[in-house]
Amino acid sequence: MSDHLPKHDGPTRTETDSMGPIQVPTDRYYGAQTSRSLIHFAIGHDVMPRAIIRAFGILKKAAAQVNTDLGLMPKEKCELIVKAADEVISGSLDGHFPLRIWQTGSGTQTNMNANEVISNRAIEMAGGVMGSKKPIHPNDDVNKSQSSNDTFPTAMHIAAVEEILHKLIPSVKALRDALAKKGDEYRDVVKIGRTHLMDAVPLTLGQEFSGYVAQLDLSLKTIEGSLAQVYELALGGTAVGTGLNAHPEFAVRVAKQIAELTGLPFVTAANKFAALAGHEPLVAVSGGLKTLAAALMKIANDVRWLGSGPRCGLGELSLPENEPGSSIMPGKVNPTQSEALTMVCVQVFGNDAAIGFAGSQGNFELNVFKPVIIHNLLHSVDLLTDACRSFREHCVEGIIANTDRIHKIVNESLMLVTALNPHIGYDNAAKVAKKAHQEGTTLREAALALGLLSAEKFDSVVRPEKMIGPGLE
Amino acid sequence: MSDHLPKHDGPTRTETDSMGPIQVPTDRYYGAQTSRSLIHFAIGHDVMPRAIIRAFGILKKAAAQVNTDLGLMPKEKCELIVKAADEVISGSLDGHFPLRIWQTGSGTQTNMNANEVISNRAIEMAGGVMGSKKPIHPNDDVNKSQSSNDTFPTAMHIAAVEEILHKLIPSVKALRDALAKKGDEYRDVVKIGRTHLMDAVPLTLGQEFSGYVAQLDLSLKTIEGSLAQVYELALGGTAVGTGLNAHPEFAVRVAKQIAELTGLPFVTAANKFAALAGHEPLVAVSGGLKTLAAALMKIANDVRWLGSGPRCGLGELSLPENEPGSSIMPGKVNPTQSEALTMVCVQVFGNDAAIGFAGSQGNFELNVFKPVIIHNLLHSVDLLTDACRSFREHCVEGIIANTDRIHKIVNESLMLVTALNPHIGYDNAAKVAKKAHQEGTTLREAALALGLLSAEKFDSVVRPEKMIGPGLE
Amino acid sequence: MSDHLPKHDGPTRTETDSMGPIQVPTDRYYGAQTSRSLIHFAIGHDVMPRAIIRAFGILKKAAAQVNTDLGLMPKEKCELIVKAADEVISGSLDGHFPLRIWQTGSGTQTNMNANEVISNRAIEMAGGVMGSKKPIHPNDDVNKSQSSNDTFPTAMHIAAVEEILHKLIPSVKALRDALAKKGDEYRDVVKIGRTHLMDAVPLTLGQEFSGYVAQLDLSLKTIEGSLAQVYELALGGTAVGTGLNAHPEFAVRVAKQIAELTGLPFVTAANKFAALAGHEPLVAVSGGLKTLAAALMKIANDVRWLGSGPRCGLGELSLPENEPGSSIMPGKVNPTQSEALTMVCVQVFGNDAAIGFAGSQGNFELNVFKPVIIHNLLHSVDLLTDACRSFREHCVEGIIANTDRIHKIVNESLMLVTALNPHIGYDNAAKVAKKAHQEGTTLREAALALGLLSAEKFDSVVRPEKMIGPGLE
Amino acid sequence: MSDHLPKHDGPTRTETDSMGPIQVPTDRYYGAQTSRSLIHFAIGHDVMPRAIIRAFGILKKAAAQVNTDLGLMPKEKCELIVKAADEVISGSLDGHFPLRIWQTGSGTQTNMNANEVISNRAIEMAGGVMGSKKPIHPNDDVNKSQSSNDTFPTAMHIAAVEEILHKLIPSVKALRDALAKKGDEYRDVVKIGRTHLMDAVPLTLGQEFSGYVAQLDLSLKTIEGSLAQVYELALGGTAVGTGLNAHPEFAVRVAKQIAELTGLPFVTAANKFAALAGHEPLVAVSGGLKTLAAALMKIANDVRWLGSGPRCGLGELSLPENEPGSSIMPGKVNPTQSEALTMVCVQVFGNDAAIGFAGSQGNFELNVFKPVIIHNLLHSVDLLTDACRSFREHCVEGIIANTDRIHKIVNESLMLVTALNPHIGYDNAAKVAKKAHQEGTTLREAALALGLLSAEKFDSVVRPEKMIGPGLE
Repeated sequence: MSDHLPKHDGPTRTETDSMGPIQVPTDRYYGAQTSRSLIHFAIGHDVMPRAIIRAFGILKKAAAQVNTDLGLMPKEKCELIVKAADEVISGSLDGHFPLRIWQTGSGTQTNMNANEVISNRAIEMAGGVMGSKKPIHPNDDVNKSQSSNDTFPTAMHIAAVEEILHKLIPSVKALRDALAKKGDEYRDVVKIGRTHLMDAVPLTLGQEFSGYVAQLDLSLKTIEGSLAQVYELALGGTAVGTGLNAHPEFAVRVAKQIAELTGLPFVTAANKFAALAGHEPLVAVSGGLKTLAAALMKIANDVRWLGSGPRCGLGELSLPENEPGSSIMPGKVNPTQSEALTMVCVQVFGNDAAIGFAGSQGNFELNVFKPVIIHNLLHSVDLLTDACRSFREHCVEGIIANTDRIHKIVNESLMLVTALNPHIGYDNAAKVAKKAHQEGTTLREAALALGLLSAEKFDSVVRPEKMIGPGLE
Repeated sequence: MSDHLPKHDGPTRTETDSMGPIQVPTDRYYGAQTSRSLIHFAIGHDVMPRAIIRAFGILKKAAAQVNTDLGLMPKEKCELIVKAADEVISGSLDGHFPLRIWQTGSGTQTNMNANEVISNRAIEMAGGVMGSKKPIHPNDDVNKSQSSNDTFPTAMHIAAVEEILHKLIPSVKALRDALAKKGDEYRDVVKIGRTHLMDAVPLTLGQEFSGYVAQLDLSLKTIEGSLAQVYELALGGTAVGTGLNAHPEFAVRVAKQIAELTGLPFVTAANKFAALAGHEPLVAVSGGLKTLAAALMKIANDVRWLGSGPRCGLGELSLPENEPGSSIMPGKVNPTQSEALTMVCVQVFGNDAAIGFAGSQGNFELNVFKPVIIHNLLHSVDLLTDACRSFREHCVEGIIANTDRIHKIVNESLMLVTALNPHIGYDNAAKVAKKAHQEGTTLREAALALGLLSAEKFDSVVRPEKMIGPGLE
Repeated sequence: MSDHLPKHDGPTRTETDSMGPIQVPTDRYYGAQTSRSLIHFAIGHDVMPRAIIRAFGILKKAAAQVNTDLGLMPKEKCELIVKAADEVISGSLDGHFPLRIWQTGSGTQTNMNANEVISNRAIEMAGGVMGSKKPIHPNDDVNKSQSSNDTFPTAMHIAAVEEILHKLIPSVKALRDALAKKGDEYRDVVKIGRTHLMDAVPLTLGQEFSGYVAQLDLSLKTIEGSLAQVYELALGGTAVGTGLNAHPEFAVRVAKQIAELTGLPFVTAANKFAALAGHEPLVAVSGGLKTLAAALMKIANDVRWLGSGPRCGLGELSLPENEPGSSIMPGKVNPTQSEALTMVCVQVFGNDAAIGFAGSQGNFELNVFKPVIIHNLLHSVDLLTDACRSFREHCVEGIIANTDRIHKIVNESLMLVTALNPHIGYDNAAKVAKKAHQEGTTLREAALALGLLSAEKFDSVVRPEKMIGPGLE
Repeated sequence: MSDHLPKHDGPTRTETDSMGPIQVPTDRYYGAQTSRSLIHFAIGHDVMPRAIIRAFGILKKAAAQVNTDLGLMPKEKCELIVKAADEVISGSLDGHFPLRIWQTGSGTQTNMNANEVISNRAIEMAGGVMGSKKPIHPNDDVNKSQSSNDTFPTAMHIAAVEEILHKLIPSVKALRDALAKKGDEYRDVVKIGRTHLMDAVPLTLGQEFSGYVAQLDLSLKTIEGSLAQVYELALGGTAVGTGLNAHPEFAVRVAKQIAELTGLPFVTAANKFAALAGHEPLVAVSGGLKTLAAALMKIANDVRWLGSGPRCGLGELSLPENEPGSSIMPGKVNPTQSEALTMVCVQVFGNDAAIGFAGSQGNFELNVFKPVIIHNLLHSVDLLTDACRSFREHCVEGIIANTDRIHKIVNESLMLVTALNPHIGYDNAAKVAKKAHQEGTTLREAALALGLLSAEKFDSVVRPEKMIGPGLE
C-alpha cells in the first residue's frame, strides 16, 4: 500500500455511498467518496488548490440560496448549507479537502468532497449524526440542481478570475509601475542601444525601461481581454449541458448570485454544452499568461545582462546585492531575482503546453482533463504573482545606473555614424564606420581622414543626446 | 557547396553593397545583399511567405508616399517606388524573393531584398542601369526613414492581420455555420449523452452540434480580441525605437497611410521600443490560434468517433465516403477529414510552442527571432484556413445521422434513471441502475421489482425526449 | 511581507555570512544564507524535492571522505560531517530544508542549506556553538573542494537516477507485467481490430494487449538507454569546470565514492565544462519520460474506450468499479484510473516542454535553470511512478473481457472480406463489402449474390479465428 | 474550388478505384486515389518529403523481391516493379508524388500514390495501357503482402534513419570538429569565466570550446542511441499487426532485404501491433533532436555574446563579417549565423512538441498521426543538418579571438580572489573582494591593505594561468 495515504490511526466512523460502507476518520467532515478517492488516487503530492475549494464554497452557497428562492429547498436547509459553505469559503475547513489533482478528470471527487464536508458540517451544526445524510444530504441537498460536470468548471472559472484579478494583475501592475518609476529616474541617461547584441544607435535608459513597461502593458491587456469569456459559468448545465433536474431559471439566477457573492461580473454561459466539454476560455487565458511570461523573460534577461560584470561584463546597472552568490567564489553576487523569475517563466511555458493539450482532449459532452487544466493555470498565476513581487521588491526598486560607465561606452560606439546618413549617405557613412573599426580610431578621425565632411558638421551632427528621438537635423 | 543554392548558370551582372561587389543573375531584380544571403543561409526549404512580401510592398509604398508628403522625397522618386511596390503587392515579382526564413533574425535580408527589388525595378522603369542605385537607391530612397528593425515587425503585423481577417476567420465562420445548419437539421433527434465516454443522460443531436458551434464562437472571439494589439505598427521606430532619421510625424502618418492602403484600422504603436524588442501581440495571437486548434481537435474527434463503425463502433453518424480507405481492406472508408484536421491542430500546437519560445528571447532593443515567429504564425493560419474549409466541404456538409441506431441505443441507456432523482432520491435511483446493470434488464423492470414507484410514474418520468432541457416535472 | 514566509515567532539565534548577521530560528540547523533565501525567494509553494536533499547528503559525505583520504581534512572533521550527512540522507533532517525551487538558478542556496545544516548539526554533535562555524565550517569544510556549480548538478544526477531506477522502472515493469498477464488470460479471444476507429480485420485480445506491453518495453529501453549519460557526475569541476581548489584526484575518487555509497555505476563526467553549463543528459531523460507518457496515453485511452458503455459504447471490456462516477447520475461508473493516468501524461508533456526550454538557456560556464529542470523531471518521475501503480492496481488487474459481446461484433464486421483478397482480388472483394454495407446484409450473402465464389470456399476462408496471423491459405 | 489544386488544363485519362472513375492528367503516372486526394486534401503547401518517397521506392522493391523469392509473384512482374521502384528511389519520378502531409493519418494515400506510380510506370515499360492495372496491379501486385498501415511506418523509419545517419550526424560531427579545432587553436588563451553572467574564476578559451564539443558529443550519443529502435520495421504486420495476407516469412525476409538495399541494419519489429499503433521510437528520436537543439542554442548564444560589441559588448571574439547587418546603421555587422541557428533550434523545439502530441494519439490498432510525425521529424533533421553546416562554414571556422581584450579583462576580475580560499579562508577572501569592489581597487591592493597575506604570497597564488585546472598550490 502506498506511503502517500494519509495515516488514519485514530478513531473512525462508517460512511456509505452507492458502493457501500467505508471507514472515515472521525475528526474529518468528508465522507465515503472522498475516502475512496484517497485510496484509489494516491498519486503524487499535488492537491486541489485553495482557490478551487473556496470557489466550491461560493457556488454551493449560491446554489442553495437560488434553490430556496425558487421554492425547491426549505429555508432551514439553506441556512445550514450557507453556514457550512461560509466556513469552506473562509478556509477554516481546508484540512478536510485532502484530494489530489490526479483523480477523476471531471473533478467529481472534489465536488463530492465539498458536498460531503458541507453536509456533515451542516449536520453537525444541526445536532445530527455525521454520515446520516440527515438533515442535509450531500447529493440531494448540497448538490441539488447540480452535477460535478457543471460545478467543477464553474469553480475553475471563479478561481481563475479571483486569482488573476486579485493577485496577479496587482502584482504585475506594481512591477510595471516600479519599472516606470525607475525609467523616469534615469530618463536623461543616454546609453548605447544594442540590436543583435551589437552596438547600435543610442537611446536613454528611460526609453529602454519604457519598453519594458509597454511589454507589460501589452501582456496585461491580453490577460484582461481573455477574462471576458471566463466570466461565463457552466452552472445550470448539470450532467451534460441540458440542465436536466435543474429549474429553468436556475442557471441565470445562480450566476447572478455568484456575481453578488464575489462582486465580479459573472454570468451564465451562453452554451452549456461547450462549457462542459471544452475549455477554450482557460486555454486562452493561459495563452495570455504565456504572453506575460515571454515579456518577463525578456525583461529579466535584459536586467541581468545590463548588470553583468562587475568588471568583465556590460556593467551598466548595479543590481541589489541580496545574498552571497557563490559557495566557492568569495564576494560574488549574482542576479538571482532574474534567475528565479526566468525559471518561473519557463514553468509557465511548460504549464501552458499542458493546458493546451488537456484542453483539446474533450469527448462528446465532457472534457475530463479539468483538474490538470486548473492545476497548471493556478500554478502559473501563483508563480507569476509572487515572482513579479519578488523581482520588484528585491531587484527593480534597488537598481542603480552606473552612469559613468554608460556615458563612457556610448561615446565609443561606431554606430553614432548613423546620424551621418542624411548628410553623406548610407554608403559613405559605412566607409567611415569601417575605417574607424579597422584602424581602432574614433569616427571623427575616420570621417575627417576620408574628407567626407567638415569637423564642425561632424560635431554638430554626431551627438548621442540628439539621436534619441525622431527628427532630421 | 550546398545543393540548396539556386542555380545561376545564366548571365550575371555586378551589384555592390558595403561588403563589396558580387555577381547577381541578370534576370533577377534583387541585388548584392539578397545574393549574399542566398550563399550564407542555404538552410532548409522554408521561404519567406507571400503575405510578408506583399506586406513589404504595402509598407514601402506607404513610406515613399509619406516621405514625399513630408517634403523629404521628390515626387518622381515616389512615383517610381510606388509603381514598383505595386508590383510587389500584386505578387508579380514573387520570383525575385528567394530568401529563407533561416536568415538573420531581424529579417534585415528580406527588407533589403524588398529594397533591392523595388530599387532595381524602379531603375528599370526609369531607363537606368540596374545595380547603379540611380535614380532609386535601395537604402537612401526605398528604405528612407526606415530600418529593418521597424519594417519587418510592421510587415509581420500587416501579414498576420490580413491573413487572419481575410482567410482564417471566414473559413472558421463557414465551418461554424455548416455545423449550426447540420445541428438545426437534427435538432429533434434525441440521443445518448456521453461523459467520461460512458452512457449519460440524453440530449439532442442539435444540442451536441450547438456545443461545437459555441466552441468555435469562443475561439473566434479570442482570436478577434487578440488582433487589437496587432493593429499597432512599429514603423517609425527605425533602428532602436527612437525614430532616429525619421521625421517626427512619419510614424503616425505612415500607419495612417497603411490603414488606407489596406482598409484596416492600423495605427502607430504606442511604444516603439516594445514593438521592436518584444512580440507580445503575436504570441497572444498564437495563443488564440491554439485555442481554436483545441476546439477543432475536440470537434473532429467527436465527429470521427460518432461515425465509427460501421458495425462495431458507435455508428451514430455516417460521414461522406470520399475515397477508398485501405490498400488492403476492401470497402473500408475512413474519417480522413477528421484525421487531416486533427493533424493540423497538432501542428498548430507545435507552432505555438515555437512562437512562444521565440517571443521570449529578445535582448535589449531587438528580438532577433522575427522570421521564425511569423513563419510559424502564418503556417498555422494557412493550415487552419484550409483544413476548416476541407473539413466543412468534404465532411460536415455531408454528415447523415443514423437516426434508427441513435434512437435504439438511447432507449437502452441506464442513465435515464437520473430523471428519477427528484422523485425517489439519488440513492434509490442508484439502486435501480445497478440492479438493471447487473441483471441485464431494463430500468423499468428493475424499478418496479424494487417497488420504488409505479409503472405509470416511471413511464411518465423516464422519457428521453423530456430529459433534454432544464425543468423538474 | 509575504504570507509565504515560514513564521518564526519563537526564539532565534544570530548567524552570519559575508553579507552580515541575520536571525535564524533556534530550532533550525540552517544558517544565514538559507534564512536570506527564505526572505528573498518567497515564491510559490514548490520546495526542493526530498530526492535532491538526500543526494546532497550522499555527495557531502562522499566529498568529506575523499578529502580525508587525500589528506586534506582531519579524520575527526570527516567523522562529524559523515554523521550529520547520514542524517540528511535518512530524511530525519528534512524539516531543515525549507527552500523553494524558485531561488537562484544554480541552486547555490540549497547547496548552502546543506552546508549549513551539516555544519550546525556537526557542531552540535561536537558540543560546539551553532553558527560559530567551529569546528565545522559550512564553506571551508562541508563544501571543501566543491562549488554549488558542481554539487547541484551532481545532486540532480544522483536524484534522477535513484528515483528512476528504484521507483519508476519497477512501477512501469509491474504495469507491463500486469498487461502481459491480462493479455495472456485472453490470448484466444478473437475480436474486431480497429484502424482509423473503423472496423478492420480481427486480432486477439491477447495480441492487442501485447502491443501495449511492447509500447512499454520500447519506452523502458529509451529511458534506460538515456541513463547512461546521467551516471556522469559534475563533481570535481568546482566553480567553472576547471576544478580549481580541488585535488587533481578528487573528481575521479568522489564519483567512485558516490558509486559505492549508492551501489550505482556513477563515474566522473568526461568534460566538466559541459556538465555545469549544459544539461543534455537530463533533457534526454525527459525525452524518454515523454516517450513513456505517449505510450501510456495511448494505452489508457484504449482501455477506457474498450470499456465504454455499458450499453451505448464499445463495451468490450468491463473495468473495475471503484467509486460512484457521478454526483447526479445514479449508478454511473467511470474509467477514472485512465483519466488520472492521462492527466499525468499531459503533465509530463508540459514538464518536458519546461525542461527542454530550461536546458537550452545556459550561458558560458553555467546553466542557471537547474532547479526548474530537476523539479520538473522529478515531478514527472513521481507522477508516472504512482500513476502506473494506481492504474495497474485499480484498473488493469481487474479488467474483465465481455467475451459474448466481443464475439458478437467481430462476426458482424465487413472487414472480414479482406481474407478474400488472395482469392478474388482487392477490387472484387471491395464490391462484396460495399454491397453488404449498402444492403445491410452479411458478407456471405453479398459474395454469393455476386457469384464470386462458392459458399464452401467462403466458409473456409472467412473465419476470424484464421485471420489472426500471417499466412495465406 | 481551392487555388491549391494543381491545374490540369492538359489532356487526361480515366483511372478507376473502388469509388469509380476519375480523370487523371495524361502525363502523370499516378492514378485514381492520388487524384482524389488532391481534391479532398487541398490543405497548405507541405508535401510528403523526398526521403519518404525514396523510402517507399526501397520498400516496394524489397517487397516485390521477397514475394518472388517466396514464390508468390512471377519473376517478370517482379522485374517490372523493381525497375519502376528504382526510378522512384532515384528521385526521377518525384514530380509524380504531389500529395500533402495533411491527408489521411495513416498515409494510405501516399502508399497508394507509390502503388499507382509504380504500377503505371511498370505498365508503360511493359507496353501496356496506363490505368488498366495490367500487367501490374497497384494493390494486388505492388502492394502485395502489405498494407498502408505497415508500409507507411516502415517508410518513416527508413527515411528517419537515412537522413539522420547520412546527413545530420556528419554535419554535427563536422561542426563538433571545427569547434574542437578552434578550441585547440586557442588552448592557451586564459580568459575570464562567467557564471550567472557574472565574472567568475578563469579558464582557457580552449576549455570553453571543449565544453561545446562535449555538449555536441552528449547530444550525438543520445541521437545515436535512439536509433536502435528505429531499425525495427513494421512491414509484415499488414493491416492491424497480425500479418494477415502476408507469408509467415515475409516480415523477417523483407526487413533483411531492406537492410541489404540500404546497407543499414534494419530488422523486423519484435511486435507489429506496437509498430503500427505507437510511435515511441520516433518520439524518442525527436527527444534526441531536441537535446541537440538545446546544446546548439547554448553554443550559438555563447558565440554571439562573446562576439558582442565591437566596442560596448564583451568583445572577446571577432566573428566573420559576412554581410551588412543593417539597412540603416552603416558598417554594422551582426552574428547572423547564430541567429539563424537559434531560430532553427526554436523550430526543433516546436516540432518536438508536435511529434510528442501526435505520438500519444493512437487508438487501438493504429496511430493516424503518421504524416505529421514524420513531417516534423524530417523538418528538424533537415534544418539542423543545414544550420550546423552553415554555422560551421560561415561562423565557427572564421572565429578570431581578441586576445588583447581577453587578457586585459581577466586580469581585472575580482574572482581571482578564489585562489586565496585555501590560504586565508572563504570569509577573509570575501572581505578582500568586497573591499576591492567597493573601492575600485585591485585585489592585491585590498588584500595587502587588510594585512591578510604578504605581497609575495599574493603574487604567487593569484595567477590566472595557474587557476585553470585542479590542484591546490
